[in-house]
Amino acid sequence: MSAAPLDQPPGAEELGRLLAQAKSRYSAAEAAALAKGAAAAPPAEDPSAWIRLIAANPSPELAAALTRLKESAAAAIAQGRAVSVAERLARLRADLGRRGLVGFVVPRADEHQGEYVPLRAERLAWISGFTGSAGLVIVLQDRAVIFVDGRYTVQVRAETDPALFEYRHLIEEPPTDWIAANLKPGDRLGYDPWLHTPDQVKALARGAEKAGASLIPCPDSPLDRVWGEQPPHPLAPVVPHDERHAGRASADKRREVGSAVAKAGADAAVLTQPDSIAWLLNIRGADVPHTPLPLSFAILEADGRAKLFIDPRKLAPETRAHLGNEVAIEAPDALGSALDALGGAGAKVLADPTSAAAWVFDRLAAAKAKIVPADDPVQLVKACKNSVEVDGARAAHRRDGASLTRFLAWIAKEAPKGGLDEMTAAEKLYQFRRTNELFQDLSFGSISAAGPNGALPHYRSTPATNRKIEPGTLYLIDSGGQYLDGTTDVTRTVAVGEPTAEMRDRFTRVLKGHIALALATFPAGTTGQQIDAIARLPLWQAGLDYDHGTGHGVGSFLSVHEGPQRISKAPNRIALRPGMIVSNEPGYYKPGAYGIRTENLVVVTRVAQPEGAERELLGFETLTLAPIDRTLIVADMLTAEERAWLDAYHARVRAELMPLVDAETAKWLAEVTKPI
Amino acid sequence: MSAAPLDQPPGAEELGRLLAQAKSRYSAAEAAALAKGAAAAPPAEDPSAWIRLIAANPSPELAAALTRLKESAAAAIAQGRAVSVAERLARLRADLGRRGLVGFVVPRADEHQGEYVPLRAERLAWISGFTGSAGLVIVLQDRAVIFVDGRYTVQVRAETDPALFEYRHLIEEPPTDWIAANLKPGDRLGYDPWLHTPDQVKALARGAEKAGASLIPCPDSPLDRVWGEQPPHPLAPVVPHDERHAGRASADKRREVGSAVAKAGADAAVLTQPDSIAWLLNIRGADVPHTPLPLSFAILEADGRAKLFIDPRKLAPETRAHLGNEVAIEAPDALGSALDALGGAGAKVLADPTSAAAWVFDRLAAAKAKIVPADDPVQLVKACKNSVEVDGARAAHRRDGASLTRFLAWIAKEAPKGGLDEMTAAEKLYQFRRTNELFQDLSFGSISAAGPNGALPHYRSTPATNRKIEPGTLYLIDSGGQYLDGTTDVTRTVAVGEPTAEMRDRFTRVLKGHIALALATFPAGTTGQQIDAIARLPLWQAGLDYDHGTGHGVGSFLSVHEGPQRISKAPNRIALRPGMIVSNEPGYYKPGAYGIRTENLVVVTRVAQPEGAERELLGFETLTLAPIDRTLIVADMLTAEERAWLDAYHARVRAELMPLVDAETAKWLAEVTKPI
Repeated sequence: MSAAPLDQPPGAEELGRLLAQAKSRYSAAEAAALAKGAAAAPPAEDPSAWIRLIAANPSPELAAALTRLKESAAAAIAQGRAVSVAERLARLRADLGRRGLVGFVVPRADEHQGEYVPLRAERLAWISGFTGSAGLVIVLQDRAVIFVDGRYTVQVRAETDPALFEYRHLIEEPPTDWIAANLKPGDRLGYDPWLHTPDQVKALARGAEKAGASLIPCPDSPLDRVWGEQPPHPLAPVVPHDERHAGRASADKRREVGSAVAKAGADAAVLTQPDSIAWLLNIRGADVPHTPLPLSFAILEADGRAKLFIDPRKLAPETRAHLGNEVAIEAPDALGSALDALGGAGAKVLADPTSAAAWVFDRLAAAKAKIVPADDPVQLVKACKNSVEVDGARAAHRRDGASLTRFLAWIAKEAPKGGLDEMTAAEKLYQFRRTNELFQDLSFGSISAAGPNGALPHYRSTPATNRKIEPGTLYLIDSGGQYLDGTTDVTRTVAVGEPTAEMRDRFTRVLKGHIALALATFPAGTTGQQIDAIARLPLWQAGLDYDHGTGHGVGSFLSVHEGPQRISKAPNRIALRPGMIVSNEPGYYKPGAYGIRTENLVVVTRVAQPEGAERELLGFETLTLAPIDRTLIVADMLTAEERAWLDAYHARVRAELMPLVDAETAKWLAEVTKPI
Repeated sequence: MSAAPLDQPPGAEELGRLLAQAKSRYSAAEAAALAKGAAAAPPAEDPSAWIRLIAANPSPELAAALTRLKESAAAAIAQGRAVSVAERLARLRADLGRRGLVGFVVPRADEHQGEYVPLRAERLAWISGFTGSAGLVIVLQDRAVIFVDGRYTVQVRAETDPALFEYRHLIEEPPTDWIAANLKPGDRLGYDPWLHTPDQVKALARGAEKAGASLIPCPDSPLDRVWGEQPPHPLAPVVPHDERHAGRASADKRREVGSAVAKAGADAAVLTQPDSIAWLLNIRGADVPHTPLPLSFAILEADGRAKLFIDPRKLAPETRAHLGNEVAIEAPDALGSALDALGGAGAKVLADPTSAAAWVFDRLAAAKAKIVPADDPVQLVKACKNSVEVDGARAAHRRDGASLTRFLAWIAKEAPKGGLDEMTAAEKLYQFRRTNELFQDLSFGSISAAGPNGALPHYRSTPATNRKIEPGTLYLIDSGGQYLDGTTDVTRTVAVGEPTAEMRDRFTRVLKGHIALALATFPAGTTGQQIDAIARLPLWQAGLDYDHGTGHGVGSFLSVHEGPQRISKAPNRIALRPGMIVSNEPGYYKPGAYGIRTENLVVVTRVAQPEGAERELLGFETLTLAPIDRTLIVADMLTAEERAWLDAYHARVRAELMPLVDAETAKWLAEVTKPI
């Protein structure tokens, strides 16, 4: 954004006049507060959507004034970050000292334990400088330690000061062990019960107990208190998600899930995962990057009625009517007293100890509610897409596949010339995608990785790391879109110029694993964990593997990573069920050299029963449509069955996408989808 | 046994004289007590071994007198069973009433939670008549319910009186739910804390809590009190297990496991699994059928010293010296005070909540010991066989395979004539096996199953179920031996006469799964759960499956089923490690028609690293040697790789067994191991 508007914040009087003219119900001060909230939300495809929360028909003057206000607020947030990390640590330590705490735990989490967190919850980044998507800091009075996983060992050292932080491996040297080894008897270590689940608190407490120390909940976070310029809660419009795309009315969903709550022996459930709430109420928002959810809490009664705890200013005018009279709107602050009321009424309350904040459990326990610890009752129902959602996914994948194919054709033509780089390429793909019907956003920041950067499975290109896409290398592009009718996530790896024999061998092994999974059939009741190895066997045979899961769940215009199912080595008891959308994404990574991943989304379907079958058989229908680079395939390594799959897939890609792409892309597509 | 000796119990005076002559340290009364214990142990291959516990060199008269005593005791035990089940229930209910209990839980478990239990612990059979290997009864004042799994739904109805018991499915309608639904607020339900793990108690308590009832520990079991003729603890000789077979000295093992106990943060570990103790101390016994373990408890200190809680009368003379002075012998009753002493000393004590009795935890908690809940520290070390044990296993499998091959040749010749039945066949195989060097016992009761009986994976032939082996059917034989140098477990399915096309299709699919697992290579760190599906895929493709695990761990002259690893759909976090012996046993079962299983034992080994390999690769070496019935294989369904495996396996079977079998068997073997 440009700096110019900062010099011209609109005067309160002028703003008040413009608001009145536009028949806004907000005063100038209220509008300024809204603008701050909007500045704390991620950038939106439609940057003025939030303005319509203030006035249905804003004049151009009002829109400009509000935009200036928001930009001014954004600048203030950015300035808040200008205080040095050393100073932040000093402030926090002073506050801890006043509370008699030896230290404080800062996870990378928000109050909803979500994957994407709003600016306000970037506490880990604020206290340390580290901006990765997972990690944890423990600040003691005389030292501080930061835990990150294998993805971030390099990045954490680049972003943080080794004079201020010690480094530990989050998985191999977990915080619990560090606490056990480094705290002293009698020490009191603070944590914010909003930012940890009860299960996480238990793990930390085990460590403290070993050391003879104790873990102290601090619901009034010392960190939030000393973070003077902490951004406000994000404020982005909450809009209805049309039943045309959702496939079911919220009332219907609420009654089904309410029955499940009753069946679990509870009178009500506390919902703390915003994607559960968005799905249940058929609403969408824009509070965090790339996932169209409004941050909120909810209580669902067994009879299907609900209370939604959300800032009412976020609700677009049509949203209240959409929610109907079975959904009461309450302020976020009212959650505590609502939990107290449940306890007072002797209610049995379901809460999920793996996803809800410990604060919720503490409050319920204090209110003497009977807690029923159980899985979030929405997650499994949400994961099994209905036929409207599956049809929507198919349609979204056709449009998305056409954009990706256009991009791949462009890469095939331009990359060998040597002038492209990762960020330019990602931007090009974004521009192709955003022209699509129903496009709302990318579903995550694209992984556009050239050469050795491809070996980092979670790589994100920045100006500092941006590489040229050079001949003789592999280029990996992992990206997706949020469409009103579905969420996509696809990875293709392409050779730029001539690939080496090793690259082709590895690519073919990855492809064999991908095809084996695509072709697998399995009885109902089978979990993703049970079939994960099927995608790995061709790599295992060569003594190779990949250190990530084979597949994750994907939402319907919701989270690109959703549970409860997954295809992975990690223990998981959730059976794959018809309608679940998961990714099929084996890979291979050679550090310092290249990375390979071939990812399609697939939907679990009932397959035709073979004669004599005794079990209900399930399998996968591939949703993603985009060519797989044949120049990277060693045809002799494929079995007849594998070739048949590949040729049929390419024939389908050609048939479905040909009508959707330009003539030049069509010509290229016809060429690259020929039988192997 | 014949009834005659019962009329002639040796007089105490005469017995005393014979004992004195033989320089026994026991009086006549003491010898009689020993005989009762011997009668409560399972039949032994050497029926007079226990007599040498009384006198090193018994005179024939003494041996005869003691044998008569034991037979008389055995008859008394059998008579104790003559009281009707209705009378047993009435006695138990009267005792419960006096205690203010509404009911009592009777599991099929002993104090060690073992798979095989001694006669004394056959409480489930005593209270109900049901003799299956898994189940649970809840006796209330006005009703009783018995829970069994799918294996036993027919058997339980045959063995119990429906006027006395209701029937429930152990897995689908678990006791916890039944308790929740059927107890009333304020009800007190008793259980014996020796017969449940803390995890099991927790599950039952959840049910009671839901009903507003409570679960009451009864360490002085009401059932044991009213079981007038309850057999005594079994008393079978405990002998050293030679280092020539064990491969490591006990002191060495104790120090390694002691270090692991220290590493887990404990000062000592309570060991309650008899196979852990037998392995750790290099001792073997004969207290339960088919598994050569002495029932005992132990406490292992972090420094490697141990206390063994065992009836000292069981110890063969050489065993005390063998145990050495780092292992103290204490009476079983002394366990409680030893746990109290640990508590009194403020010790941290490791105990396994998944295998130790709740009683152990209750006692430790009462003694204020710091409990460290963790896996039994012996299990994983024991599971990874050392090179002496693996060499022993190879040798044992050669001898065992020769016996089985001799049997299969005999079946091939005799069965088509139509005169054989299941029990005759099983006895024949036993006679072949027991002539083998180092043979000690069968490793479990053979599953000798003709035609439709083969469809019951855990079938045991009885006079009532004994079927003829008829032409046009399949015959399945699952059996194994206990040898001093190893434990075997093998299943072969053979066609008697002409098999149907469907039988051959199913057999071939099972074989493809077996071969796929035998050929699989996987990186270190992979669990059995991850590779289970590899053996199922060929069945899944046809909509078929089998409802048991693909592989279980096997001990070294110990339990034929041991943990902690397994190859199964069930969650399991234990990685397969070099030296682990597991079974590879996919199957297919057509109820009412036939069953197929092909089972070899395999040992996890490091495999040659392929060029360019980046991970340490593991795979399997097949230990079992016996031909696989080629007449049941559809050769066209096998890939070239599968044929190559089969032919190489048969070549190896031929080469290794040919020198060990008689001429007629050798001729047959040469024929049936030809390339497919």
